[in-house]
Parts: sequence; structure tokens; C-alpha cells
Amino acid sequence: MTNSAYESYREKLRRIADISYASAVLNWDQETYMPPKSAARRGQQLATLAGLSHELYVDPQLGKLLRELKADTSLDDTQQRNVRESMRAYEKSLRYTTSFVEEMSRAVSESFLAWEKAKKASDFSLFAPKLEKLLDLKLQECEMLGYEDHPYDAQLDIYEPGARTADLEKLFTEVRAKLVDFVKLIAAQPPHSQEVMLRHYPKDKQWDLGIELLKQMGYDFEAGRQDISTHPFTTNFSATDVRVTTRIDERNLAEMIWSCIHEGGHALYEQGIPDSEYGLPGGEYLSLGIHESQSRLWENNVGRSHAYWKANFPLVQRYFPEQTKGFGVDDFYKAMNTVQPSLIRTNADELTYHFHILIRFEIEKALFERKIKVAELPEYWNARYKEYLGLEVPDASRGVLQDIHWSHGSFGYFPTYSLGSFYAAQFFEAAQNAIPGLELKIMNGNLLPLLEWLRENIHRHGRLYTAEELCKKITGEALNFDHFMKYARKKYSLIYNLKPETV
Amino acid sequence: MTNSAYESYREKLRRIADISYASAVLNWDQETYMPPKSAARRGQQLATLAGLSHELYVDPQLGKLLRELKADTSLDDTQQRNVRESMRAYEKSLRYTTSFVEEMSRAVSESFLAWEKAKKASDFSLFAPKLEKLLDLKLQECEMLGYEDHPYDAQLDIYEPGARTADLEKLFTEVRAKLVDFVKLIAAQPPHSQEVMLRHYPKDKQWDLGIELLKQMGYDFEAGRQDISTHPFTTNFSATDVRVTTRIDERNLAEMIWSCIHEGGHALYEQGIPDSEYGLPGGEYLSLGIHESQSRLWENNVGRSHAYWKANFPLVQRYFPEQTKGFGVDDFYKAMNTVQPSLIRTNADELTYHFHILIRFEIEKALFERKIKVAELPEYWNARYKEYLGLEVPDASRGVLQDIHWSHGSFGYFPTYSLGSFYAAQFFEAAQNAIPGLELKIMNGNLLPLLEWLRENIHRHGRLYTAEELCKKITGEALNFDHFMKYARKKYSLIYNLKPETV
Repeated sequence: MTNSAYESYREKLRRIADISYASAVLNWDQETYMPPKSAARRGQQLATLAGLSHELYVDPQLGKLLRELKADTSLDDTQQRNVRESMRAYEKSLRYTTSFVEEMSRAVSESFLAWEKAKKASDFSLFAPKLEKLLDLKLQECEMLGYEDHPYDAQLDIYEPGARTADLEKLFTEVRAKLVDFVKLIAAQPPHSQEVMLRHYPKDKQWDLGIELLKQMGYDFEAGRQDISTHPFTTNFSATDVRVTTRIDERNLAEMIWSCIHEGGHALYEQGIPDSEYGLPGGEYLSLGIHESQSRLWENNVGRSHAYWKANFPLVQRYFPEQTKGFGVDDFYKAMNTVQPSLIRTNADELTYHFHILIRFEIEKALFERKIKVAELPEYWNARYKEYLGLEVPDASRGVLQDIHWSHGSFGYFPTYSLGSFYAAQFFEAAQNAIPGLELKIMNGNLLPLLEWLRENIHRHGRLYTAEELCKKITGEALNFDHFMKYARKKYSLIYNLKPETV
Repeated sequence: MTNSAYESYREKLRRIADISYASAVLNWDQETYMPPKSAARRGQQLATLAGLSHELYVDPQLGKLLRELKADTSLDDTQQRNVRESMRAYEKSLRYTTSFVEEMSRAVSESFLAWEKAKKASDFSLFAPKLEKLLDLKLQECEMLGYEDHPYDAQLDIYEPGARTADLEKLFTEVRAKLVDFVKLIAAQPPHSQEVMLRHYPKDKQWDLGIELLKQMGYDFEAGRQDISTHPFTTNFSATDVRVTTRIDERNLAEMIWSCIHEGGHALYEQGIPDSEYGLPGGEYLSLGIHESQSRLWENNVGRSHAYWKANFPLVQRYFPEQTKGFGVDDFYKAMNTVQPSLIRTNADELTYHFHILIRFEIEKALFERKIKVAELPEYWNARYKEYLGLEVPDASRGVLQDIHWSHGSFGYFPTYSLGSFYAAQFFEAAQNAIPGLELKIMNGNLLPLLEWLRENIHRHGRLYTAEELCKKITGEALNFDHFMKYARKKYSLIYNLKPETV
């Protein structure tokens, strides 16, 4: 028997998803193919769609349906979880007015354009006024959404439902305590040559290699595609259309490799979420932290492993016989696992990466406590880079302007990157325990058993569980940073010949 | 003083346009980059957007505003014209229900997919059931929209406001009377060699040549772009984002040339419509006939002229020195102006082209009079091709399935192609009279004076006038087929050495 209230609810959510995904198509186009003069009109079109999907979400009829369904004991477990999660999202939506949603969307478009100009000119002052306006809106948003302890909690909750400032503070204290010393140990060792990565790798062949790597991971090109964009990203307009973008640097092969594998990991997640649940929580990703766990698992635990390059270095050699002449898989492996403090987050190695996040977390927290002003950001930023990474920031475009996120109004987003890496380490350990001979399979280029395990244990659940529930379900415990440290110690001790007693 | 009712009206229309243009982005993506598995979800997303924009259009608040503004004598001429035209469109929209709009959108998606399969398999029976369903909806639509004389009038009016079946019948009777004999005269002459067109022209260089031709026409690549698609088309998401697509046949240079110039002509029109009138009638194209007048003027009156190739054949020679070796501009000019009955409308020369339209017009009229059934279409089609073009249709994919239009539910669309060519001849004659030395300018590759004239006399008016008003404003009379015949006689008599007394 079909439940007609449930069907109406599903139909309403389908329509909302149709509009959100239409926005996603417009965003994808904006980042890949849109001609420059169209920026203002596109911003306006996106604002209208955002307003419309919000209007549909706050429809009192939807609220009535949800209340009715919440009391309906005939629903099965999946249906109940969908309804519960939709109720949470519905109540959150009610706190926004359509005019606020449209104002925010416009402010984001303006701020994004200002950031683009500022970054190009390396002049923070071109961005500051728009960022200030956006931050004001974001602070208003915190009050509208409400929070228990800290206004920043309201922002975190948007990307990582349930995450709290206090918990992250605890986590990053641990990161500082354990990772800083370990990185110092590594820094005391002689550095590895990166030469093999930095030769001239022609664009077209890099493109073909990237496509091959994606196919090997199990990415379905019949339900997706790859394009070029300034900043690589993954987007989806349903589970049947999940797109990735990459960028190619002819003087650094690593750029393309990491963006393909990383975005590929995101995309496999979206392609694995059941299309039958389109529009419902069960048809959507769980949280950004979990999303990032999928990209990081493929990028770090798989893509930066020796086993993976045992399988794939011969492929690189086939594409680039000249460039790789005289280098072996170990050179390649070490070149891509060089730990070294650097200025740009997206180019960071998998260990110092978390210092970049730590800095952003501290800044965002201070902004939402109104302890620092937007105008002070560059100074504050540069001081932290000096302190944590020992680096002088030469200019704003390699400093505070390097990332797109704040221009999008995404505060509370960065921490999910670290959460993702830490979840990834913990999930990958569980996968290793569950799949006999996983390393050997990877060494043979057979990545599908791993994908199958991820599909079964993570992807197919959409957002039917919380991140904590899912993590416990898979690994038997909540997120635990020790798994990441264990992975890091084991791997880098081998790479850098660290003595067991020192790690 | 700003008129607040007028501003509210403008704002409402802006929002509707935002959604329609979002649909256009999704459609563009569907034709260019969308992965195949996503077809069903995309169809659904487009249906939702169609329903939404319809809901906004039939908003009684909009009706109230329009009635108020219609009585407002303080509006200037442009504002009054906008309001009058919006009222017409509003009243038309009221005749549709949202559920009908969404049902139609879904039927179109299904029928399009069925047509694609049917065409591939050259099997009309795969398409027939979907087409039948769509035709039923279209016949319902005629009753909903209303008409005075003929149900087909209601369809024509969608694409060519004011066009009537009876007028077209008169026009096509004239076409038959004058063009058939002239084409027979030509057919009696020795044919020209097409060899220079049919050599091997590599894709990449063709692409570059096409871009150069578009730039020369004045197409603004900062407010548009070109991509590849199966069927070339132009689409726009505002006057600041007007895109064209092309297709390239390495064995036939003409394919790319005509699609670039033709779509370029459409695109120049859209780029010339004032962006300040976005969403209002004054910010939209007048009719499909007038749209086509712009593409045909560039394609036929400019692009197929001797003057144009005087300027551009050297460019072709520069791109393709090997392929064009031993050929001169006259060979090139004659090769692209060969008149010869053929099966495929889009490959037809500019004279026999109109027989293709004539056949479609007769079929559509008969369908809407319920004089023929969908199942009888192939037979009816083939008989007409035998009669008017003297050709045997070898299979359905080169016959009744060749065009996409019916699969989109576009009945009444084809006649606008002929209207466009006839308007083009009449407009171009006016341009020649208005611009001293136009032919010489074209011969020197200077196309901008013509573009400026089109901008001034056609583009900037958007839909503030009817086609008939515009035509009279520019040429001093309503559409008159004699201008096309005059153009055709003059041109082809020279090309085919016809004696003056015979033409």
C-alpha cells in the first residue's frame, strides 16, 4: 500500500530538489563555460532560484505533511529517518525569510566577483567591503538560526550537522599537540627530490591520464563528465549526473593527479547515493565532513599509497616515457609524499594541511566572536602562518585571499576538510579490516572491491544517519584522531626513515 | 519620477525571465555536455521549471498590475508597448493550467528521447506513439488558446504572433507558382562542381576558421561562446550570454560555414536586444520569423554572396592551402550556390529549401485538421517529396524523422523559416538602399556597418512592434515575396548564365 501523505511529501521535495539542482547547473556553468559579461545576470538568476526553492521549502503544507508523517507509525525505518531529517531541515528553513535568502545570494555573487578581482590584484582592500557586508549577514544568520554555546556553532551546523565549536577546539588542540612535533621530526630529515613531478607534462596527455585514473576508480562517465575550471570541484544534478572538474599545470603533474583522484572520490560518493531517493535526505550526502572523507580516502589513503603507484606508475610511464626516464616508482612515491610547510592550502601535503585548517578555524572563530575585524584579517593571517608554518606570506593572493570560501560566505566549511581526512583514516582502517588483501588488490589496480565497500557502508545511506551514528556503525566508535596519527606515523616513518622510538 | 507599479511589473517579469533563462541553461547543457544517464532527471527538472515560471506568470497580482498600467497615461511609448505586449502574453498564459504545462513538458522530453531512438534506428514506429500523445496535447492546446479560423492558427501564433493559416496558404501558393518554375530553369543547366567543398578539412582548423568568421560579423565572445552539438542552435540567458553551437563535418566544409554564419546571425540579434529591458517584451526577440530573418540575412544575403567570399576566400586559403589549391573564389562561390533538390532540409540550397517547408506546412495543416493520422505521416511525407522535389525517400531517418521539431511539440515552427528568408531579402534590400557602398564594404570584410544598421532598425526594438509594423517601418510595406524572387532571379541568373528573357 502506498502512503499518499508520504508520496505528497516526496513530490514536494522532488520539486525543491529540481530547483536546487537547476541552480547547481547554473553554478557549474558559471565556473566552467560562462562568458565574462554574463556575471551580473547569472548572479541575479541564481538569487531568484535560491529564493524560489526557499519559498517552496517553507510552504506550510509541507510542515503539515511532515507533522502528520512524524506521527505515522506505519512508515518503515528509512521513511521515518527521511521524515525526521526533513523536519529538521524544514524547521531550519522557517528561520529564513525569502528576502534574506535572496539578499544573501546577491551578496555572495558580489563578494565572489570582488574576491576574484582582489585576488588578481593581490589587494585585500578590494574585497574587504563586500566581505564585511557578507559577514554581517552571516552574523545575522547565526541569530536567526540560533545556537546554544557559540554563534559559530550555527555556521558549523550548516555544513556538518551536529558539529560544535567546543568539540572542534578539542580536536584541533589534539592536532596541535600530536602533529606539530611529528612534522618537526620529519622536517629534520633530508628532503626528497620532487624532480620527477616538475618536468614538462603536456596538457592533452595529462587529461587522458586523468580520465583513465577516474575510470579505474569506478567513476561512471555515462553519469558524469570532467571539465576544466580554475578551482577543481564536484557537483551533481542527481545521482545520474555527477560532474568533476580539474586543472592542469604542465609544470607540475601532481596538480592534475590530486584533483582527479580527490574530486573522483567526491563524485563516487554522489554516484553511489540512491537515485530512487532523489530529493529526500536519503538521496543526499550526509555532511561535508563525510563528503570529504570520501575524497580524502581516495586521495590520501589510496592515491598517496605505495600500492596504488605500484599499479599506476607504469601507466604514467606509458603516457610520459621521456619525462619519467630514469625514475622509479619509489622516486615517484616519495616525490608525492614530501612533507614541507607551504603557503597554499590546496598544494599542502597531507600532514601540514591541517595547520592551514587550524589557522582558518581560529580566524573564523575570532570573527564570529567579533574579536577581530575584517580589516585586520591579513595581519592576523600572516602572523599565524609565521607561527604555525614558519613562513612569511609574501602577498595577499598567496595569503588571506587564496581561498574562494569566504567570498561564498562559507564560514565553518574549512574545518570539515580536516574532519574528512580524520574520518577517512578511520574508515580506511575499517575497510582494510573488512576486505581481505585490500592492499594487494590496490597493487593490482583493482579498486572496485573498495568502492563496493564504500557504496555498501557509506554511500547508499545518504543522510539517513548522523555522521556520528555512521562512524560508530562502521568503525565501532566515534571520530578518533588517533587513527589518523597511526596512519601518518606508520607511513612517514617508512618514507623518512624515522627510528621507531622517535615516533 | 519612477513609476512604482511599473517597477513592480518589471520586477515580476524579471523573476519569470530568470526561471525561463535557467531552463535555457539546462537545455543548452542537455544538448552540449550532459551525460546520457541523466536524461530522465533533466526532463523532470525542466518540467518543474516550466511549471514554476507558468505559476509566476498567471499570478493575479501581475494581472492587476497590468490592468492598472494599461490605464496609466503617464507611461512613455516604450513602457506602453511593453505593457500591451505583456498583457497579450499574460492573457494567453491564463489559458494554461500548471498541470498542463508540466504534462506538456514531460511529454516533450519523452517524445524527444523516442525520436532520438527512432531516428537512429530509422524506425518511425518507435516515435509514433509519443508523437501521437504530444499531438493530442497540442490539439487540446489549440482549444485552450482559441482561434478564429483554423486550429493551426493557435500554433502559428505561438511562434509568429499574428500569423494565420490562410495568409501562409496564400504565401506558399505564390512560392509554388514562382519558385517551382525558376528552379526547373536552373535544373536544366549543367551543375557546378562541389569538389572544393568536399575535400578533407580537419576539425581543429575548421573550428578556428568558424571563430574568425563569427568575430568578423561582430559576435561578442565576451558575451557568448561556441560549442559543438548534434544540431546547431543559438540560445541566450540574457543579452550578455548568447551562445551558439556548430557541427563540423571533415568531409564537407559547408556544414560548419553555414552553421556558424546562420547561428551567428541569430546570436547578433540577441546580443543587440537591450539588456536594460531584460525580461520585458522590449528585451525579447520579436518572433521566430524575425529571428530567422537575421540568421538568413547573414547566411544567404551576406554569406552566400560573391562579395563576402571575395573578402573571405583568402582566409579559407590561408587555413587550408592544400585543400583549396587550384581553386579560385568563383569555384568556391559556385560550389556553395548549387541549386539541387535534396532530401535533407538543413542541407538544402536557399531556393529548394522552401519546398521542404512547404511540405511540412501542408502536413502540419492536415494534422491539425485531423485529415491525416500520425501513422500515415511517412507515406504522406514520401509522396510529397516525390511530387515537389522529385526524390525517393530511402528511409525514415532521411525522411519524416530528419527534424527534431515535432519531437519538441513544435508545430507551426517550420513556416517561420520561410518567412525569415523572405523578410531577410526584403530587409537586406532596405539595408542596401540605406548604406552607401554596402557591397564594397562587405567585399573588404567590413561587416560592422551592416550590423549597426540591423541593431538600429531591428535588434534594439525587441518585441515592441509586431512583425508587420516593423517590416513596414523599415521597408515601407508589409512582407512581399517579390523581394525574395527579385534577389533569387538576379543572383542565380548570373551564376547559371540564364538568359534575361527566361527569368
